[in-house]
Amino acid sequence: MLASDFFARYEAYCPKELAMADDPVGLQIGTLNKDIQKVMVTLDIREQTVQEAIEQNVDVILAKHPVIFRPLDNLTDQDTQQKIILDLARAGIAVYTSHTNIDIVENGLNDWFCEMLDITETESLTDFGLGRVGNIQSQTLGDFSEKVKAAFDLSGLTVVSYDPSLTQEIKRVAICGGSGGKFYPEAIAKQADVYVTGDIYYHTAHDMLSQGLLAIDPGHHIEVLFVKKVAQILRAFKTDVAIIESTSLTNPFIKK
Amino acid sequence: MLASDFFARYEAYCPKELAMADDPVGLQIGTLNKDIQKVMVTLDIREQTVQEAIEQNVDVILAKHPVIFRPLDNLTDQDTQQKIILDLARAGIAVYTSHTNIDIVENGLNDWFCEMLDITETESLTDFGLGRVGNIQSQTLGDFSEKVKAAFDLSGLTVVSYDPSLTQEIKRVAICGGSGGKFYPEAIAKQADVYVTGDIYYHTAHDMLSQGLLAIDPGHHIEVLFVKKVAQILRAFKTDVAIIESTSLTNPFIKK
Amino acid sequence: MLASDFFARYEAYCPKELAMADDPVGLQIGTLNKDIQKVMVTLDIREQTVQEAIEQNVDVILAKHPVIFRPLDNLTDQDTQQKIILDLARAGIAVYTSHTNIDIVENGLNDWFCEMLDITETESLTDFGLGRVGNIQSQTLGDFSEKVKAAFDLSGLTVVSYDPSLTQEIKRVAICGGSGGKFYPEAIAKQADVYVTGDIYYHTAHDMLSQGLLAIDPGHHIEVLFVKKVAQILRAFKTDVAIIESTSLTNPFIKK
Amino acid sequence: MLASDFFARYEAYCPKELAMADDPVGLQIGTLNKDIQKVMVTLDIREQTVQEAIEQNVDVILAKHPVIFRPLDNLTDQDTQQKIILDLARAGIAVYTSHTNIDIVENGLNDWFCEMLDITETESLTDFGLGRVGNIQSQTLGDFSEKVKAAFDLSGLTVVSYDPSLTQEIKRVAICGGSGGKFYPEAIAKQADVYVTGDIYYHTAHDMLSQGLLAIDPGHHIEVLFVKKVAQILRAFKTDVAIIESTSLTNPFIKK
Amino acid sequence: MLASDFFARYEAYCPKELAMADDPVGLQIGTLNKDIQKVMVTLDIREQTVQEAIEQNVDVILAKHPVIFRPLDNLTDQDTQQKIILDLARAGIAVYTSHTNIDIVENGLNDWFCEMLDITETESLTDFGLGRVGNIQSQTLGDFSEKVKAAFDLSGLTVVSYDPSLTQEIKRVAICGGSGGKFYPEAIAKQADVYVTGDIYYHTAHDMLSQGLLAIDPGHHIEVLFVKKVAQILRAFKTDVAIIESTSLTNPFIKK
Amino acid sequence: MLASDFFARYEAYCPKELAMADDPVGLQIGTLNKDIQKVMVTLDIREQTVQEAIEQNVDVILAKHPVIFRPLDNLTDQDTQQKIILDLARAGIAVYTSHTNIDIVENGLNDWFCEMLDITETESLTDFGLGRVGNIQSQTLGDFSEKVKAAFDLSGLTVVSYDPSLTQEIKRVAICGGSGGKFYPEAIAKQADVYVTGDIYYHTAHDMLSQGLLAIDPGHHIEVLFVKKVAQILRAFKTDVAIIESTSLTNPFIKK
Repeated sequence: MLASDFFARYEAYCPKELAMADDPVGLQIGTLNKDIQKVMVTLDIREQTVQEAIEQNVDVILAKHPVIFRPLDNLTDQDTQQKIILDLARAGIAVYTSHTNIDIVENGLNDWFCEMLDITETESLTDFGLGRVGNIQSQTLGDFSEKVKAAFDLSGLTVVSYDPSLTQEIKRVAICGGSGGKFYPEAIAKQADVYVTGDIYYHTAHDMLSQGLLAIDPGHHIEVLFVKKVAQILRAFKTDVAIIESTSLTNPFIKK
Repeated sequence: MLASDFFARYEAYCPKELAMADDPVGLQIGTLNKDIQKVMVTLDIREQTVQEAIEQNVDVILAKHPVIFRPLDNLTDQDTQQKIILDLARAGIAVYTSHTNIDIVENGLNDWFCEMLDITETESLTDFGLGRVGNIQSQTLGDFSEKVKAAFDLSGLTVVSYDPSLTQEIKRVAICGGSGGKFYPEAIAKQADVYVTGDIYYHTAHDMLSQGLLAIDPGHHIEVLFVKKVAQILRAFKTDVAIIESTSLTNPFIKK
Repeated sequence: MLASDFFARYEAYCPKELAMADDPVGLQIGTLNKDIQKVMVTLDIREQTVQEAIEQNVDVILAKHPVIFRPLDNLTDQDTQQKIILDLARAGIAVYTSHTNIDIVENGLNDWFCEMLDITETESLTDFGLGRVGNIQSQTLGDFSEKVKAAFDLSGLTVVSYDPSLTQEIKRVAICGGSGGKFYPEAIAKQADVYVTGDIYYHTAHDMLSQGLLAIDPGHHIEVLFVKKVAQILRAFKTDVAIIESTSLTNPFIKK
Repeated sequence: MLASDFFARYEAYCPKELAMADDPVGLQIGTLNKDIQKVMVTLDIREQTVQEAIEQNVDVILAKHPVIFRPLDNLTDQDTQQKIILDLARAGIAVYTSHTNIDIVENGLNDWFCEMLDITETESLTDFGLGRVGNIQSQTLGDFSEKVKAAFDLSGLTVVSYDPSLTQEIKRVAICGGSGGKFYPEAIAKQADVYVTGDIYYHTAHDMLSQGLLAIDPGHHIEVLFVKKVAQILRAFKTDVAIIESTSLTNPFIKK
Repeated sequence: MLASDFFARYEAYCPKELAMADDPVGLQIGTLNKDIQKVMVTLDIREQTVQEAIEQNVDVILAKHPVIFRPLDNLTDQDTQQKIILDLARAGIAVYTSHTNIDIVENGLNDWFCEMLDITETESLTDFGLGRVGNIQSQTLGDFSEKVKAAFDLSGLTVVSYDPSLTQEIKRVAICGGSGGKFYPEAIAKQADVYVTGDIYYHTAHDMLSQGLLAIDPGHHIEVLFVKKVAQILRAFKTDVAIIESTSLTNPFIKK
Repeated sequence: MLASDFFARYEAYCPKELAMADDPVGLQIGTLNKDIQKVMVTLDIREQTVQEAIEQNVDVILAKHPVIFRPLDNLTDQDTQQKIILDLARAGIAVYTSHTNIDIVENGLNDWFCEMLDITETESLTDFGLGRVGNIQSQTLGDFSEKVKAAFDLSGLTVVSYDPSLTQEIKRVAICGGSGGKFYPEAIAKQADVYVTGDIYYHTAHDMLSQGLLAIDPGHHIEVLFVKKVAQILRAFKTDVAIIESTSLTNPFIKK
């Protein structure tokens, strides 16, 4: 099957136009003008992902995180990020990125998060469609953080609260995969009790608490849900293209 | 004792000139031209810190983190950060900040970290004196991360590694309190095996690992060591000024 | 009476939205969420104004000129402007500013100027509503400048003219309180014979005369009319809040 | 005599290199490669100055204020400033400007001001040589302002003081011709009691007084001293070039 | 006839408003408020053009290329471009520029080019009206380049092609007088086979060929057609103003 | 032989440090950490050059013009320039660029031009070493332009002169390969009679002639001399690496 035909079907579900301004989405490396047998879905592209793709004879990698996120002045082995790109080009493996459009699209990543956490009656968090806000059964912050931990199979997470008892009652939740800290005023504006997002900065956490917002930081890597969910969608196309899920470990963080 | 005389002694130990360009240090609120009886040392100034200072009849707060870090267009109770400043001014409490100069100064915060972690033969991490690099007894990353956890009495920390066994041997350590992620190339340049610093960003962690650097993120709040250590120094001045350590909880993060 | 209720009435007359872009209006220091007994109206806030407000037990100062007009990096007694703000915060006195909105609003400062100078059939000078243009009885420039001097009780003023006889006949006048020199092309476009505004710059005066526009510079301080007029308006609210007019001398200029 | 030879002598006294960065000095219109019979010295070049120069058959105008101070996009009669330049070019009259270099040069404009006001033991006000600071016989601000008025034959001037008695004793004076308001911190740094300069802005006057500096604003036009003094210097060259002083009235301000 | 009346008729044909943003058109030097007997039309204004205009007692020059295209900081004989302007002002000769408006206007320069090259069914090349695209009789690139050479009486021109046989069949042509290289993507978007424009840059030529576009560079000077064509239009006004065509050689390039 | 060893020898002759600021030189694509058998030298890298390199089993291309001259946001076949880079990476061919350092280095490209044109007693044209100025036997511009044409085997070139006879006597020549038009004031400052450089812009040609400078524009492609000369140098290293000269036609211009 022609790669361009395959991704035309993906884009019918998740259009590139949904992405935020200046966000790189779509083909980043190689060509879509070739027949493909195998597509690999991954959250990140690191050295081990490239190795896996080569060993698996993958034709295209469909990744959540852009592999080129800073413009390239060169393309040599003297820079580790360039070497990843160079090795993919050398191996003839194309890369297609689905970044903020999969975050924004209806029935996309943030909606899957809501399903897993039983957040209902959802609406968008931001004007441009990123994140979600919705309601949960009234419960304590402690219980909800346990739920997040279980849902994403985390060995640990961080709660933003001055009260270690975590007994605050919550019933409205904002959520944004990735690093959504800067959107916390939207969570307040939409009456969220707690905001679930990754990489919350120390002083941003202070600002949240001063303004009455609690938060849960499950880390950036919960986005790995992308792999399983997007693979399901691609398989549902029922093409002759094999869909594999990357098994390379790319989470750089180990909680102790 | 006149506040200006008191802080002249502090500055003989930790000069303002050491601070990085554009970093706010020294008097930020109020006056040093008054007699003082009580100084409170704190890492952060949040609402609860202001409350504590008022209850304790504090004359000056000596803080690690600047209380004014964005220029103020107004000074009203409609903004939570402005309200902290307004309440301090209203209460007649001065604020003196010792930010990157206490990080940089010899026998300052980063040196105290090294002592606690038995890092020896240290030198500066960056050209302008921030952070330290030094040697430890050869040990595994797992053992060293346990040591960091114990030294700072942490309920959890994050290790940057793809290998969950944490059996990598390390003997050279870079360390930088606060959010030192962007200085990781200096750690590599100075042959560090592992870099201890707070708030490491997901994609920076990827870059570190691609370039062969391991890391430990104990969070931003280990800087609370500032409180105890600086209080000791101030008491050693043997003035008639009472030195108290803030007991307000300002760490916004709870590890679960 | 709650300060916020009091100023809601003021804003019904003079909305903040009328102000020019980036002009600071409304609450600048303190809180409106408190009961107030006494409001003081003033043109400027200088050291002597702060002293007067403290002695008079004022709760809120309503000022024409913003007290914070440059963002504050600090709030200490080492800068004279910061010390004014610090002393007001220390004394618990709020500051509410009504700057370009009182210039622009209908029945505001520029209209009062027109009344005092018998300028009739007025319209706005600029597109956004600042200043006025209207007609007077035909008279010489000399006679009109005497009228301005008398109306504002000035010991001296400056006329922009190469002809010292001041016998030019004028019948159309533009006026703009404060420093309106840069709007002189609008005065020409609206057929004014003479432009009354403060702080006219030497080379701007040349440009005016080259283009056939005469001018009268009564100084910046004629805006002190704000005090008496706004006090009248506030008293007409018939609340139980006492309204006093600042009697501190803040005009920095003495004509000799 | 060749114009270039004539101005080479002027530049031996007052080099162009002394001027502040980006300040236009030297030839601005026409050519110095011609024989000249008559040079006219003037403070400003306005329409009446052009008329006078044409009637007097002037070859070159030597002016204090630049005639081109904004880059020209066109050179037509539709703009009054362009028309002045166009008319000079049409008449074949060259223009040579001596702006901040005559302010800075030793035995230049600011020194002449000092002589007229009996200011002695002078030094430069600013690092780059603009303005002067020196001592006077101890006297009241009132007496000194009378002296300034008499020295420059002014019908009025403005004193910056909150105290209308003007009885403050002064003995150290800073002075800067033109609009030197922004240099007031230098006057304070050099212990001046009073600062004499033109076009002082209302809020700058407030800042001066808050910091303990008094001021006298004699207006911009005292620089007309340039005409008489520079004409003397040029005549002392004893060339066959006639030196005339412009008699056109270009002071746009009349004090009432 | 009054110059302003004469050019009002020209502007009825070729309005200034058509010009591109920031492009200088209309009166650039002198006045239109005078009676005129003679207008000279020219492509460029160089020293020899000024000389010719003076000798011919020209009142106004109508030029294609702006005579002031960089803002002037001075107007002296020490800069060759300024000297041209100074000499025109000295001689009392006005300059009126018709630059991109004559390129854009219907029945203007680009349309005349199309007529000469038998390009039919034309439309605009760019959104704002510059350039044209249209069809020709199918022919080889070699034949068409001979036609261009003959039409503009050129001793040589440059063809952009890797194939020296020039046997490529072409039937759709884009054309843009002056230096239109940067608009080549528009030519591709409008299906042109070949693009005729001046001053094509070496690396732009590479980009064109990589994207399948051929080109012909006849140089910048074919715009001299402006002189003859505009003179015809002006003569057709049947005023008493004599219209002459500049005969000065201003093409700086000689092909060998 | 290891590529890095091979290019270490090249850099001993032509160091990267000589290049102008921000000019990309050195390794641009691939790795130097591999054994190489064949190096191809070329002026440009276009599609046909890539094809040739693949067919010739080239390991590294040494090019004059950078192959990455704009930062890359993507690396796909949807952009012709990116496709060139992608195809090289796919084929495992490294690219090493020697751009302005070969222009600047002693015994480099500009010196070879001087040898071919019998320009002697040369010195640098610009402060940073680009271009050369030197003397020739006194001759007419016509004769010298014939010499340039013959030396570079050109079918045509362009002379910048208003005088078609080309009989001007010249004896001092400035030369700068590539597009050196903007350095013409340096040529004047160093007393050149004529300036040889490529891609001279129409209005720059006017400026040159107004200031008395003649010029010859042989086009950008004379730099192809780079290929033969650098190949000689590389062969003189007497390594076992085969050195071939690209025979692909990349000159986009055909003179008619």
